[in-house]
Amino acid sequence: MNAEALRALEVECAQRHAEFCKAGLALDLTRGKPAADQLDLASHLDGALQGDYRSEDGTDTRNYGGLRGIVEARRLGAALLGAPLAQVMAGGNSSLTLMYLFVETAHLFGLGDQGPWRDDAAGAPKVLCPVPGYDRHFAICEQLGIEMVNVPMLATGPDMDAVEAAVRDDPSIRAIWCVPKYSNPTGCVYDEATVARFAGLPKLAAPGFRILWDNAYAVHDLEPDPPHLAELFSLAKQAGTEDGVVMFGSTSKVTFAGAGVAFMAASTPVLGAFEQRLGALMIGPDKVNQLRHAKLFPDMEALTSHMRRHAAIIQPKFEAVQEALEAGLAGTGFATWTRPRGGYFVSVDTLPGLAREVIRLAADAGVKLTPAGATFPYGRDPEDRNIRLAPTFPPLADVRRAMEVFINCVRLASARASLQENS
Amino acid sequence: MNAEALRALEVECAQRHAEFCKAGLALDLTRGKPAADQLDLASHLDGALQGDYRSEDGTDTRNYGGLRGIVEARRLGAALLGAPLAQVMAGGNSSLTLMYLFVETAHLFGLGDQGPWRDDAAGAPKVLCPVPGYDRHFAICEQLGIEMVNVPMLATGPDMDAVEAAVRDDPSIRAIWCVPKYSNPTGCVYDEATVARFAGLPKLAAPGFRILWDNAYAVHDLEPDPPHLAELFSLAKQAGTEDGVVMFGSTSKVTFAGAGVAFMAASTPVLGAFEQRLGALMIGPDKVNQLRHAKLFPDMEALTSHMRRHAAIIQPKFEAVQEALEAGLAGTGFATWTRPRGGYFVSVDTLPGLAREVIRLAADAGVKLTPAGATFPYGRDPEDRNIRLAPTFPPLADVRRAMEVFINCVRLASARASLQENS
Repeated sequence: MNAEALRALEVECAQRHAEFCKAGLALDLTRGKPAADQLDLASHLDGALQGDYRSEDGTDTRNYGGLRGIVEARRLGAALLGAPLAQVMAGGNSSLTLMYLFVETAHLFGLGDQGPWRDDAAGAPKVLCPVPGYDRHFAICEQLGIEMVNVPMLATGPDMDAVEAAVRDDPSIRAIWCVPKYSNPTGCVYDEATVARFAGLPKLAAPGFRILWDNAYAVHDLEPDPPHLAELFSLAKQAGTEDGVVMFGSTSKVTFAGAGVAFMAASTPVLGAFEQRLGALMIGPDKVNQLRHAKLFPDMEALTSHMRRHAAIIQPKFEAVQEALEAGLAGTGFATWTRPRGGYFVSVDTLPGLAREVIRLAADAGVKLTPAGATFPYGRDPEDRNIRLAPTFPPLADVRRAMEVFINCVRLASARASLQENS
Repeated sequence: MNAEALRALEVECAQRHAEFCKAGLALDLTRGKPAADQLDLASHLDGALQGDYRSEDGTDTRNYGGLRGIVEARRLGAALLGAPLAQVMAGGNSSLTLMYLFVETAHLFGLGDQGPWRDDAAGAPKVLCPVPGYDRHFAICEQLGIEMVNVPMLATGPDMDAVEAAVRDDPSIRAIWCVPKYSNPTGCVYDEATVARFAGLPKLAAPGFRILWDNAYAVHDLEPDPPHLAELFSLAKQAGTEDGVVMFGSTSKVTFAGAGVAFMAASTPVLGAFEQRLGALMIGPDKVNQLRHAKLFPDMEALTSHMRRHAAIIQPKFEAVQEALEAGLAGTGFATWTRPRGGYFVSVDTLPGLAREVIRLAADAGVKLTPAGATFPYGRDPEDRNIRLAPTFPPLADVRRAMEVFINCVRLASARASLQENS
């Protein structure tokens, strides 16, 4: 675009922006939350037991005990995570809590033979963070005082050359955060070669290195023929690196976001060592709610068919986002974006230095976006260009309207920046 | 008793013991768990919502958010704990988890203005433990590496002279564990003077001192006209020591032991500081289960009437324990014991040095008792005489049978020890 075209664009977008600002909108694309009609799909969860609180092995789920959860819930977790039943724990309502406690245990208490990271001779521990990534992973490290090191995300998953080089060169790198399927926020699915390299990674790293495999979107496909994530646990077993793999997942975006069941999988010694710590923190998870979930999903078939109903609700919202991006930004060079086949997010990269400004402009027009930098450790996006869009929670019409505003903000900010650069 | 009488007793008890051993019993008085018929009282919990998941302020309890819990659950907690609604959090299924995380936060992370205990200039932190006490409190301190200091329990609560002297003399004492009503295991209720002295305690102690007030048995009365526990929060407010009081409780032994709702109360700044930590650990508690509980117990009247039905089930078991103790040990000088008016335990003190032996004898006869020392920090009963009996879980007939065995074991061990001492 020449300067004249840019000036015309700036005028047009500024005028539209002013109109949006006057319209008194109150829209929100920040929240990776299911919409009410998605939650309705599981509204029979309360009452699912019909008075029978016994698990299949006769356990009275109403009483104390059983740190690892009931067997039918663990079986569901095993299928969800792709891990052997014997190595799966079914927990409470939050996989985030399991992740926090696992990292904290490794850092402050030690896991079995492995002493605490904080006492390690290799120095203060570091954790690799593929970026952009999930802010709550970063918040765990930040609160525990664990240094985070960025590695780039590619369309195939983390840049494995960078990951392997990092763990080889620096023994103080103790773990890596991963969302391997429909990664938050780019939506990419780690490809087979990437997962295979992950299976070998603990061999390149210092002893006690952990892959924190947060498979939050394991079954959250938008398409009937979804991409396949290779099974890291089998590959790691073959490679003899099982102790280096810790998996997490939950039904938070399957049944109820606040009242689902979380899962975790790890090798027998690692899970056992973690349970040593957990045993002082709690007597056991809510087994009644685990049993409800097992009733709802007696097998993966039932779960998969349930997830297709989720997809029917949210797929049009993701399509609306893509249509708006395509119609408003394709060919402009103002932004690139991802086309996720599942999960909860779309990731947009503006021109360098414009994310904060776009988010500010959108806020002025009544459209809340995830704060700039949120997808990076310490809230610092080094190029200030990544914006995470979360289209599931608002009604479809709101998603469309919010995207109109957003696209116009990107165009406006880009036109202004380009003009300034040319002058 | 003279030597001859003791010898006769020893012979009689040894013979009975041998018969018990041959009977192949498998009885268990170890577990502070509700019996199945107690759990049945709340069997309508699953399904209580009848499809309506909205809390009274319109919150969709199925979705993410709300670290402090929903208002109707918090109101229930406020009534249960005797604390202002604004200072009450409703949590997940475990008050133990809240206690662990609170103590850990104070010790490793710091709470608001108060730096972490571990960094304190006063030296390595210590926590006062009235003994005998609750093993899971001690396990928290042990896992966190916090030194425990015993103080004696009296019939009126902890020996407050000893408690006050300890906190006055030693600024490294940072907290005290309390079960103020139907204390585990003695069953005593702290009297009014004791609670009043607790309200003043933080003034005598170093800054940041916390009273960990685990009111686990707040509504677990066995009698229609139960003893009253003075309201520590009001007294502390008057004394200006509110920041020093942290209360915990739950519905674990009200509804379901594994699937109830936990509560916590603290001053506004202390609760706020704790939530800072909690916010990295979880998005929020299971609000759906909170709403179920609020439906079951719309007010304290409903809760109290529910607890009377619990009492009707377990009071005969407590009576059977008292009858057996009375019939078998009164006037022998072989033991003293408590007569709790609520809670879950009876505490027996044998002659010094005999608890371990009595428990061993009972095990040989097929009666499991709580391991010796469990009611003391580090599992060390300095006089080896305290035994905790938990009569709620087994059927009444089993409680009676187990008590026959137990009484005979106390008599046998006492006769033998007395003979040895006389010889």
